[in-house]
Amino acid sequence: MRILGIDPGLQVTGFGVLDKVGQSLGYVASGCIRTPDIELPGRLRAILESLNDVIGEYHPQQVAVEEVFVNVNPRSTLLLGQARGAAICAVVTHGLPVAEYTALQVKQAVVGNGHAKKEQVQEMVKRLLHLPAPPSADAADALACAICHAHGGMGLGRLPTAGYRVRRGRLR
Amino acid sequence: MRILGIDPGLQVTGFGVLDKVGQSLGYVASGCIRTPDIELPGRLRAILESLNDVIGEYHPQQVAVEEVFVNVNPRSTLLLGQARGAAICAVVTHGLPVAEYTALQVKQAVVGNGHAKKEQVQEMVKRLLHLPAPPSADAADALACAICHAHGGMGLGRLPTAGYRVRRGRLR
Repeated sequence: MRILGIDPGLQVTGFGVLDKVGQSLGYVASGCIRTPDIELPGRLRAILESLNDVIGEYHPQQVAVEEVFVNVNPRSTLLLGQARGAAICAVVTHGLPVAEYTALQVKQAVVGNGHAKKEQVQEMVKRLLHLPAPPSADAADALACAICHAHGGMGLGRLPTAGYRVRRGRLR
Repeated sequence: MRILGIDPGLQVTGFGVLDKVGQSLGYVASGCIRTPDIELPGRLRAILESLNDVIGEYHPQQVAVEEVFVNVNPRSTLLLGQARGAAICAVVTHGLPVAEYTALQVKQAVVGNGHAKKEQVQEMVKRLLHLPAPPSADAADALACAICHAHGGMGLGRLPTAGYRVRRGRLR
């Protein structure tokens, strides 16, 4: 089972791909889509097309998208929503199922603490996927979302982390 | 010049198509995309695909999208943002330019009052496009957005309305 995790954002959208084989997880790829500093429609297009490329290259079978609330002000929330809409559009046009997880669920699943710091998420992703170094924060969030889905969303695996709890996402 | 106006929403997305020939506007089509009562990704897909159909059928050359703030709570704003993101994705994948107008700009351009009621917008759209009856509220908002773009966004026409003011949108 190949899973794509996405952490959407208007400036930076993180993505991470992993394979789940039995109980183990294997890292495939990860990275960040940085949109050019242009007006909104062009940025949404960049997110859409870059994720199309990622999906075309790695052929994930399931997709997990992080639901982040950056409740700074309504304008920021609307902008983030639009970025998230573009990311989900890229996924659904490929006919792939989308599961959504809150940042709290992702952190709980990966670190065992819903209020874990970014560095803790990066460190746990590095350990769980046996990476030589921690991925960047955005890529780590996306990989963490994929890990959360691999375990919680499918109710199969176990993460070797004290305090780890399975959180079931809504598979769509 | 054929203009598509869009009033995005997660449940109902209004659309309206009109032709601008010289100083006059001609009604072409309008309607509402009602998404099925399913989870978010399916709704976004419905918006994306339905707007793809509208664009494929009417071949607009420019698109104007209304920017509405429904500042009820951050969750609603995020949902609206996602619907708007899907609508803009449909447009940009066709390589069409997108202009954005706030509801205030649209109402000022069409009714001459940024705080006009829905019924006033419907009535003015009916009059300006010589329709036999007022369009539904969502279709009227979309047509109003297209009218706003035809006049303000392009700085060419004049609406025969007392208190009408040209508001320039951001053509993208």
